[in-house]
Amino acid sequence: MNGVVKTHQPVIVVHGGAWKIPDHMITDSEQGAKLAALEGYKVLKSGGSCIDAVVKAVSSLEDNPAFDAGRGSVLNEAGGVEMHALVMRGDTCDVGGVLCIQHARNPVQVARIILDESPHCLLAGEAGLKMARKHNLPEENIDYFITDHVKEELKNFDKYTQAVDGLFNTNTGHDTVGAVALDCHGNLACATSTGGITAQQVGRVSDSPIVGSGGYADNESVAVSTTGHGESIMKVNLAKTIACYVEAGLAPKEATAKALKKMNSRVGGSGGAISVDTRGRVGVHFTTERMTWAKIGGSDVNGVVGKFVEFGCDATNVKKESV
Amino acid sequence: MNGVVKTHQPVIVVHGGAWKIPDHMITDSEQGAKLAALEGYKVLKSGGSCIDAVVKAVSSLEDNPAFDAGRGSVLNEAGGVEMHALVMRGDTCDVGGVLCIQHARNPVQVARIILDESPHCLLAGEAGLKMARKHNLPEENIDYFITDHVKEELKNFDKYTQAVDGLFNTNTGHDTVGAVALDCHGNLACATSTGGITAQQVGRVSDSPIVGSGGYADNESVAVSTTGHGESIMKVNLAKTIACYVEAGLAPKEATAKALKKMNSRVGGSGGAISVDTRGRVGVHFTTERMTWAKIGGSDVNGVVGKFVEFGCDATNVKKESV
Repeated sequence: MNGVVKTHQPVIVVHGGAWKIPDHMITDSEQGAKLAALEGYKVLKSGGSCIDAVVKAVSSLEDNPAFDAGRGSVLNEAGGVEMHALVMRGDTCDVGGVLCIQHARNPVQVARIILDESPHCLLAGEAGLKMARKHNLPEENIDYFITDHVKEELKNFDKYTQAVDGLFNTNTGHDTVGAVALDCHGNLACATSTGGITAQQVGRVSDSPIVGSGGYADNESVAVSTTGHGESIMKVNLAKTIACYVEAGLAPKEATAKALKKMNSRVGGSGGAISVDTRGRVGVHFTTERMTWAKIGGSDVNGVVGKFVEFGCDATNVKKESV
Repeated sequence: MNGVVKTHQPVIVVHGGAWKIPDHMITDSEQGAKLAALEGYKVLKSGGSCIDAVVKAVSSLEDNPAFDAGRGSVLNEAGGVEMHALVMRGDTCDVGGVLCIQHARNPVQVARIILDESPHCLLAGEAGLKMARKHNLPEENIDYFITDHVKEELKNFDKYTQAVDGLFNTNTGHDTVGAVALDCHGNLACATSTGGITAQQVGRVSDSPIVGSGGYADNESVAVSTTGHGESIMKVNLAKTIACYVEAGLAPKEATAKALKKMNSRVGGSGGAISVDTRGRVGVHFTTERMTWAKIGGSDVNGVVGKFVEFGCDATNVKKESV
C-alpha cells in the first residue's frame, strides 16, 4: 500500500478457548489456532486494518468445527444453536455485538456489520439476522452447525457436573474463540465469538458479546479477548478490568494475569485471556488447565518480527514454526 | 430486627434519567424520584437488604408513568415496547439481567429472579418472561405500558434529530431509572431499568441490562447506576470505569465526575450516574442538561442521618424535605 505510513510492527494473537481440553482434541485445536493466526496476520502484513484481521482470524475459527463458535457450536437444552459475537475497534471505541443469533455462518461478521452500519451497539437474535440478510452475509441451516462431538456432549451432559465442576473447573466445552491485533497504523481491535455452553437455557446470553466482559479494545489501553466461565467473566467485567490495570500502568502480561487471579479470588471462576497494546506488548494467560492460543509478532520477538508463529495449549509446551 | 448487628448507616440514591427534561415534566419527575427513595429507604430502615431496597425503589419508578421504564416505556420503531433491567449485589458480585422483555410489569423484579434463581446472569426476551411466569411475577398487556406522552414522542420522532442531537445532547427521552443502596450490614447493591430510546430498532439492546455499563456493584469498590446515551455508556463501560476509579483511590463523587468527563472526551456522549460506597460516600453527577435524582442518608449528612430526603433535577437547585 503506497502512501501509507507504517508506524508499527503488526501483532496478532488468537485463542480457541480456555477449558480442560481433552488430549485427543489438542492437535486439531492447536492447528486451528495457528491457521487463524496466519490468516489474520496475512491481512496485517499487507497493510490491512486490525479490525479486518481479527474478523478474518475469528471467521477461520468459526468455520473450524473443532471450536465452539459458528460451525461446531454446542447445543442448548432444546438441541438448538444460539451464537454470540463481539467486535470492537480501539481507535474510536466503536462496538458491534450480536447475541442469541441463529443461521448466520459467521456471527463475528454480523457483529462487524453492526459496528459499521448500525447506530446501535448490540442487537438481539432476529434483529441481528435482519442486519446480516440486508448485507447478504452467508446463512446456513442448523445441520451445518451441528457436529457429532456436540451431539455427544449434550447426550453426556450431567446437570450436577455442570453446576458444580462447570463453575470452577470449566471442564465442559467452553471453547469461545477470539483474537486481538495491533496493525501497522498503531490501532488495536478485538473479536470474540461463541456458541455458549452445552445444555444452556434457550435465551441465555453469554459473556462473549458483552463489551467489557467478552472483549474490550481502546488504543489508550489495550485490546483483550476473554474465554472461560461466562458468568464469572461478566461478574468482574474481565476484559475491562484488564484494560483498567493497563491504564493504571501494568503491562498487558501482568494485567491479564492479575485480572484472572482477581476473578478467581472474587467470584471463583476460571478462564483465560489474550491481550496486546499499541507498543506490541502481549499477554496470554489462563487459570484453566489448558487454553489453545497462537501468536505472530509482539515486542518480545526481537529482530525476527513476523518470522515465526508460536502456539500451544498449556503454559510449558510452546511450539514454534516459520511463517 | 433483633440479633442483627447494624454496622452501617443506610443510604439510598435514585435517578430518573439524565436528559433534557422539559420544564413541564420536572415536578412529576422529582416527586417520583423522591417517592422511590422514600420507599427504598423504608426497607433499609427496617434492617432490610440493599438488594430489596433498590428493587423496591426501581419498581416504584417503573410503576410511575413519568419515567421511561416499566409503565411509560418509550415505543420502538414498530410501536412496541421492549424493556431491559439489571440488578447486582456487591457482597457476591452476583448479577441478574434481562433484555428485550415484554409484558413483565416490573422488569427489575425479573432481573432479581434471574439473580436469585438462574445459574445464568443474563437472559433474553422470552427466556426472561419464562422465568417471570415460573415465579408468578405480574404481567400486563401492552396498553398498560403505553402513555399518551410516548405515543406523542414517537409521532414527533425525527430521525435526523435523533441521529445527530440524540448522540451528543441526549435531547430525546432517555429516562432510564436506577438506584444504589448501602444497607445497615455494610452491603452494596444497584438496579437499573429502561424502556430504551424512542423509535429504537426492534431487538436493540440498551446499556442498562449490561453489567459494567448500566450498573455495577462490588463491596470492594462501589455501587453504580448509569443513565444517558446508551451506546456511549457501553463503549466506555461507564459503571465499571467508575468502580475502577474508586478502587484506585478516588471517592465516589470524584470517580463519577471523572468517568463521565472521560466518556464525553473519548466517545462524545453525555449521561449521568449515581454511586455509593460502603463508607456511605455518595456521587451524583451528570453531563446532560438535567438528571432527576433523590437521596436519603450519606456521609455528608452529619448527625441528621435519615432525617431528610434531598432531591432535584439540576446541579444548583437542591430541594430538602423531612422524612
